[in-house]
Amino acid sequence: MAEKITPRSQDFARWYTDVVQRADMADYAPVRGCMVIKPYGYALWENIQSALDRRFKATGHVNAYFPLFIPMSFLQKEAEHVEGFSPELAVVTHGGGEELEEPLAIRPTSETIIGHMYAQWIRSYRDLPVLINQWANVVRWEKRTRLFLRTTEFLWQEGHTAHATKEEALEETLRILNVYTDFAVKEAAIPVIPGKKSEREKFAGAVESYTIEAMMGNGWALQAATSHFLGQNFARAFEIRYLDQNNQLQYVWTTSWGLSTRFIGAIIMVHGDDQGLILPPRLAPYQIVIVPIWRNDEERTAVLEAAQRVADELTDADMRVKLDDRDNVSPGFKFNDWEMRGVPLRIEIGPRDVEKHQVVLARRDVPGQEGKRFVSRDGLVQQVQAMLEAIQATLLERATRFRDENTHRVESYEEFKEVLASQGGFIRVHWAGTSEDEARIQEETKATIRCLPLDVPEGPGRCFYTGKETEQVAIFARAY
Amino acid sequence: MAEKITPRSQDFARWYTDVVQRADMADYAPVRGCMVIKPYGYALWENIQSALDRRFKATGHVNAYFPLFIPMSFLQKEAEHVEGFSPELAVVTHGGGEELEEPLAIRPTSETIIGHMYAQWIRSYRDLPVLINQWANVVRWEKRTRLFLRTTEFLWQEGHTAHATKEEALEETLRILNVYTDFAVKEAAIPVIPGKKSEREKFAGAVESYTIEAMMGNGWALQAATSHFLGQNFARAFEIRYLDQNNQLQYVWTTSWGLSTRFIGAIIMVHGDDQGLILPPRLAPYQIVIVPIWRNDEERTAVLEAAQRVADELTDADMRVKLDDRDNVSPGFKFNDWEMRGVPLRIEIGPRDVEKHQVVLARRDVPGQEGKRFVSRDGLVQQVQAMLEAIQATLLERATRFRDENTHRVESYEEFKEVLASQGGFIRVHWAGTSEDEARIQEETKATIRCLPLDVPEGPGRCFYTGKETEQVAIFARAY
Repeated sequence: MAEKITPRSQDFARWYTDVVQRADMADYAPVRGCMVIKPYGYALWENIQSALDRRFKATGHVNAYFPLFIPMSFLQKEAEHVEGFSPELAVVTHGGGEELEEPLAIRPTSETIIGHMYAQWIRSYRDLPVLINQWANVVRWEKRTRLFLRTTEFLWQEGHTAHATKEEALEETLRILNVYTDFAVKEAAIPVIPGKKSEREKFAGAVESYTIEAMMGNGWALQAATSHFLGQNFARAFEIRYLDQNNQLQYVWTTSWGLSTRFIGAIIMVHGDDQGLILPPRLAPYQIVIVPIWRNDEERTAVLEAAQRVADELTDADMRVKLDDRDNVSPGFKFNDWEMRGVPLRIEIGPRDVEKHQVVLARRDVPGQEGKRFVSRDGLVQQVQAMLEAIQATLLERATRFRDENTHRVESYEEFKEVLASQGGFIRVHWAGTSEDEARIQEETKATIRCLPLDVPEGPGRCFYTGKETEQVAIFARAY
Repeated sequence: MAEKITPRSQDFARWYTDVVQRADMADYAPVRGCMVIKPYGYALWENIQSALDRRFKATGHVNAYFPLFIPMSFLQKEAEHVEGFSPELAVVTHGGGEELEEPLAIRPTSETIIGHMYAQWIRSYRDLPVLINQWANVVRWEKRTRLFLRTTEFLWQEGHTAHATKEEALEETLRILNVYTDFAVKEAAIPVIPGKKSEREKFAGAVESYTIEAMMGNGWALQAATSHFLGQNFARAFEIRYLDQNNQLQYVWTTSWGLSTRFIGAIIMVHGDDQGLILPPRLAPYQIVIVPIWRNDEERTAVLEAAQRVADELTDADMRVKLDDRDNVSPGFKFNDWEMRGVPLRIEIGPRDVEKHQVVLARRDVPGQEGKRFVSRDGLVQQVQAMLEAIQATLLERATRFRDENTHRVESYEEFKEVLASQGGFIRVHWAGTSEDEARIQEETKATIRCLPLDVPEGPGRCFYTGKETEQVAIFARAY
């Protein structure tokens, strides 16, 4: 615990791995590419789940559970889907000591098996819309893996909906994109950019894919969640049809959408610093850590008693509080430890504070003395609540400023390459190129189109690559 | 929906399958032995999860997540464990298009992979106890499967704890058995019998297994949850050691415990009747369904408005309410539909009720007119709350009475066989037999020892099978 982590500026990738492990978020598993999500990391995931699940239910969705196993033949029913996913499949060939007649894929995503079930459940327009989500594990056999960001097995939610009309399905796709945006901004303090994926980057089997893209602390992009309009592709592949009000058989229109444990990586890389994690108060497993300070047994009794009272008061006010009463480590050690774990607010209580009926509040987002202040025990709950809100707001402001400062506009491909090499970040351009142009740009610069943002104040302009006049804007970046 | 389900008395197994499907709890998946948990069934599971998770956290446990894949070599490290589980494994042999060097088992349970991680995490007595639970899917390749009761893949929670001493681990094993008992009795209204498993029935790798056993509506037993004292078996197999306060290296003592989606089968088979499910109010997805009754548009407006107000009032009081405002089916159809789904309380509101400022309450657990009464709209929330509590209590009383009436005491093996054949149910006996005796009894009668109950008021007596004097009591039954 004593050794320092790699500074962010020195090696961002090592800094990330150091933080994940030192903050006790996750560990490497003995199976290639897999991870163990440790209790502290999982508590963050539980808060993410709860904030999302509430939003899904408020928009009319229900949860269900579909099987882990998918018959290989199912995956082959949608041509683009199988092409996209078959290189990444884990395959079960034996069960109960015998070789299976048909090998089973472990779900890399569940459009196919859910499509198969929907075909049986949906008969009439009265059965629509079907608005189902599932919380599940999925497996994609990845070549290069990194804790949370890309692991062979990961946890996610995947929504799968079926609708009577194209309009309703498109509306749902964007409704969920808004849910994700709202969640990322309000809960995780991450100023994501909602947009459409280019043809080249869209989901295998989708007509259109939408995404929220976030900028990490090194200027790279991370796709934080996606929402897909699947048209009638899966409806046709799995014969999902309904009788409409005129008694005509019609194919349904479907969507799918997901957010995974990868999002934890985004939280770490957006907010963290050289002292470790900084967690947004609304999602933090502990919003407040209380560190009592004493030198002898007499002080210890008085201070611990006061600390416990503070802890109880804050807990009763629905805050998530940890009282660190360990007596085998020093207060300084505890400060560092909880800073590493990103607890937004620390309360220090010493013997003099008990006497003076006060405590010290120390903000994780403002280091050193500047982030510290004495506050009276009277009205502490309100003070702490206000402080947590202030921290949440500051994290969002800071991340937004960072993103904006690192978003560049360029006029030519030369300038594009120059800016990307010297400054990195997001490059926002007018874009009228083809998928082949995009592939060439990636080959030459490693940057890809992260999204075609929905909010486009630019008006028409000239494509930086082809020179063609266009209204379309794209954001290019290096990405995770 | 119109056709009747098979009566319980006629064919209990078919009644069960009919109810599961007609109440929209689950459906068969296209993969052998797997099921789809439909939204209504999953909502019940979510309530089970929440009631259990709250109890786990209140007793100091935290959640985490370990990988789905287990290297085959891990399973072989504990001799009894591999013997018990290897016939049931699903095995991944290919990943990313290539054959794996070492095949991976899909977790049938996670003692081995968690043991491997604990060996790395635990260094000193200060790291103990480790009290971790995980909510996960597991796979056991079952020959004969049945929705919820025995499926190839199922959902569960599995707790895995490590302790410094044998006493602490034993205490934990029983603490969790109490948590399960409390949950089953208070939330699910199932009067389970906590007890120890016989040597023959214990978990593969455990020193002692504890269980809660419930009696189903046909007199058969169902193992509703288990808690295992694993001694140092897995600690030795995975080298999980710690430095004690005297700086000596010691093996830890571990426990594991689980409750699965099988529990949903128990709820169905304990409480259901020929009209379908009866769900205990504390776990029911909807505690109350409101059925508005009208004949024309004018009535419709007034009735729906009143119904909506009632729904809002009850929802605000934290009750789970469904207002069934469908206009393409009759009230009678809705009554049957929600009875099938086991909603504990129905509220009917017609035009005359609106005028008279009243509603009709109809209890699911008391059929026909006997279960109906008019109540005033004033103080409705309190009335409904009291009624839900009364239903919860009645379900528990009824199940307890049924269990007691169907628990028999016998003095000889002849009598045992006679009672089992003619009446079934639980047979409670003094028992001093061996595992071989138990095997012989199973072969001859299909009954097994469900548990050696912890609460033994019988005092010493003579074993019904061996004639030996003993203090030990056993409960035999046919079991799922």
